[in-house]
Amino acid sequence: MTIVVEKFGGSSVGTVEKINRVANRVLRTKAEGYDVVVVLSAMEGETNRLINLAKQVNEYPSERELDMAMSTGEQVSIALFSMAILREGYVAKSYTGMQIPIRTNEMHGKARVKSVGTQKILKELSSGTIVVVAGFQGVSSDGEITTLGRGGSDTTAVALAAALDAKECRIYTDVDGVMTTDPRVVPEARCLKQVTAEEMLELSSSGAKVLQIRAMEFAHKYEVPVRVLSSYHDVPGTLITSEESSMEQPKITGIAYNVNEAKLTIKRVQDRPGIASKVFSPIADAHINVDMIIQNVGSDNNTDLTFTVDRSEYRKSMQIVRELLHELGAEDVIGANDIAKISLVGVGMRSHTGIAKTMFTTLANEGINIQMISTSEIKISVIVDEKYVELGVRSLHEAFGLSQKVEPMRESAPQRALEEWRF
Amino acid sequence: MTIVVEKFGGSSVGTVEKINRVANRVLRTKAEGYDVVVVLSAMEGETNRLINLAKQVNEYPSERELDMAMSTGEQVSIALFSMAILREGYVAKSYTGMQIPIRTNEMHGKARVKSVGTQKILKELSSGTIVVVAGFQGVSSDGEITTLGRGGSDTTAVALAAALDAKECRIYTDVDGVMTTDPRVVPEARCLKQVTAEEMLELSSSGAKVLQIRAMEFAHKYEVPVRVLSSYHDVPGTLITSEESSMEQPKITGIAYNVNEAKLTIKRVQDRPGIASKVFSPIADAHINVDMIIQNVGSDNNTDLTFTVDRSEYRKSMQIVRELLHELGAEDVIGANDIAKISLVGVGMRSHTGIAKTMFTTLANEGINIQMISTSEIKISVIVDEKYVELGVRSLHEAFGLSQKVEPMRESAPQRALEEWRF
Repeated sequence: MTIVVEKFGGSSVGTVEKINRVANRVLRTKAEGYDVVVVLSAMEGETNRLINLAKQVNEYPSERELDMAMSTGEQVSIALFSMAILREGYVAKSYTGMQIPIRTNEMHGKARVKSVGTQKILKELSSGTIVVVAGFQGVSSDGEITTLGRGGSDTTAVALAAALDAKECRIYTDVDGVMTTDPRVVPEARCLKQVTAEEMLELSSSGAKVLQIRAMEFAHKYEVPVRVLSSYHDVPGTLITSEESSMEQPKITGIAYNVNEAKLTIKRVQDRPGIASKVFSPIADAHINVDMIIQNVGSDNNTDLTFTVDRSEYRKSMQIVRELLHELGAEDVIGANDIAKISLVGVGMRSHTGIAKTMFTTLANEGINIQMISTSEIKISVIVDEKYVELGVRSLHEAFGLSQKVEPMRESAPQRALEEWRF
Repeated sequence: MTIVVEKFGGSSVGTVEKINRVANRVLRTKAEGYDVVVVLSAMEGETNRLINLAKQVNEYPSERELDMAMSTGEQVSIALFSMAILREGYVAKSYTGMQIPIRTNEMHGKARVKSVGTQKILKELSSGTIVVVAGFQGVSSDGEITTLGRGGSDTTAVALAAALDAKECRIYTDVDGVMTTDPRVVPEARCLKQVTAEEMLELSSSGAKVLQIRAMEFAHKYEVPVRVLSSYHDVPGTLITSEESSMEQPKITGIAYNVNEAKLTIKRVQDRPGIASKVFSPIADAHINVDMIIQNVGSDNNTDLTFTVDRSEYRKSMQIVRELLHELGAEDVIGANDIAKISLVGVGMRSHTGIAKTMFTTLANEGINIQMISTSEIKISVIVDEKYVELGVRSLHEAFGLSQKVEPMRESAPQRALEEWRF
């Protein structure tokens, strides 16, 4: 038995026509000889419709009752999808999270998967049935309906793939896979055949959101081979691998950018312990996420402290900092919201030197001034003037030769046989 | 612990405003000191929306998958309703049929209730929680979601009331209760304080459909005191009692009428064995329901055979009979679709003589010709010209003094304490 788990999001099952198309896609996988488990989200718009109904009744609806209402969205999808498969003369059976069961903890609205029952699924698969599972939902130990939070269907799919020791967990999306960069900026952008989970996380969080971060962490932890691919185009997509299994790495995997940031610089802050805490505590209290932070020690016991926040939080952040200036003994706060972040991502940069040099030289050659620099193990990010973002991304994409590579595919892990799988 | 089960149909929870109104109704019962179990149907229109979606995917959708989709309707209602109760500062918890559990057989789309778990409900009630249960749905012994068929929420409510030994099962409707007759015809029509289950069945099937017949049979069998009352008006409604518990019966309980029938008369059929079978077998094969049948033996070995069908089946029935005429050795078939049926209903007529005489005299005094007569133990029905139906109903309502009576209330049965109740 070689199992493939295929997950389709709300936009892929948003209409009856789309459900029919997805059913045909699944039947192709079945025809290739695989045993198929399908995970579906609610039809596009349905979750919002239910939330709106709830808010009309109660501005602060109970998480328990919200889960009760929300979980119906996937239940409708899986029933309709199974009907579509049956119409084509194949056997399909839908199951809710409670029926499988997908066991979770008690945290309504953001429950964590604890274990997955595989007995029912394996029995149905062995008789040729396509098993259709409601994503996003589970059941707590006391029989309550829970949901896994936004993007939870990805987690359901990955958890099922891990529990069933699936050959692959396929996450169908509205993109062809993980791209080297945004194809709207660089027409030569290429779909990566393979990335590591870490690279994927960096590429996702820096812009092109493809896969829910929690699902990614889950896949990484349990070494589930996840493939991101298109619901619409017949392309192989991108395989997300654990780092260890990756072959010789290219230096750079992709380029992400983000034009939704703003920066603030506190001028001539006194350079003494506790200053960073004084600045960032009230920012955090206001639920403002800080992305990059840079502090340069000056020569005269004073320093400039620069950080970036989401552009929508720019005014609020400015106001908070301004009220702190006196306490900080700082001269002034200045800022800009016409900035952009460009990030080079790739686990290969660990073992390759000269990446930063090539990046800075490339940008300099285009006359692009770098305002801030931040580095992590697998990423180098720079802040530049927003108007240069496209030029910067294009020139870096070319400089690192991202349009030409071919990467090897990962082999699947050996088979296990378990009646239930605990995480 | 004195439990009251209150059931609200789809039109009573069709909008957020209506849900709020129903929540207030339930909180009033709670304030009266009762422990309340609420049973809800899907919001009005929701079931049809889901069926339409299903039919778009698959013209003949699987009953199993239809149940999977349909059961979401009630799940949304119970969640929204609980949110409304919570907003008012009271505790409510919603439960699906699977969670209670409402155990049924495997017949998808028309499952029969086998047992009801009471443990979870009793525990929640004892801590002051209003328990909100999804109507219409259950779970089979192999964990499949089932539905009970149209009007199944009434059955859910009655089954819960029986299992919990509730003081009363209140079925809220868009009428004030069971009326002596249609108030659009007779403005003096009165809401009955009490009727027997049998009378209710006769009054329902002859026109004013108030309560699902299967739920009625269930209530009758398990001696559940059922009260039919209005979602909109603050009136006591009608208590449906088992016959044994009824006090001194009035002669007549109510008058039903039906203007949706047509009659056919086969003239001069040969009076020999097997004729009725020859006529009614092909009628039944065409899924046509026959209501009244009258056959008079003639003097010359020939007879006239008259029967009534639903008016929408009149042409089809005519065609079927015409094709049989030769085989029957009959002379002709004639018919009329401008007829109406008027029925006197009341268990009291068993012990009172002269009911039929009063009925026929009353109609004769108004110049109304009786075309057919049919009697059962608790009902006398006559077929008259449709144009006389209102006059007939009005004159009978007055003749039997239906505008004035007062009836006693039934006391509730003694309490039982069971963790689970089997039917």
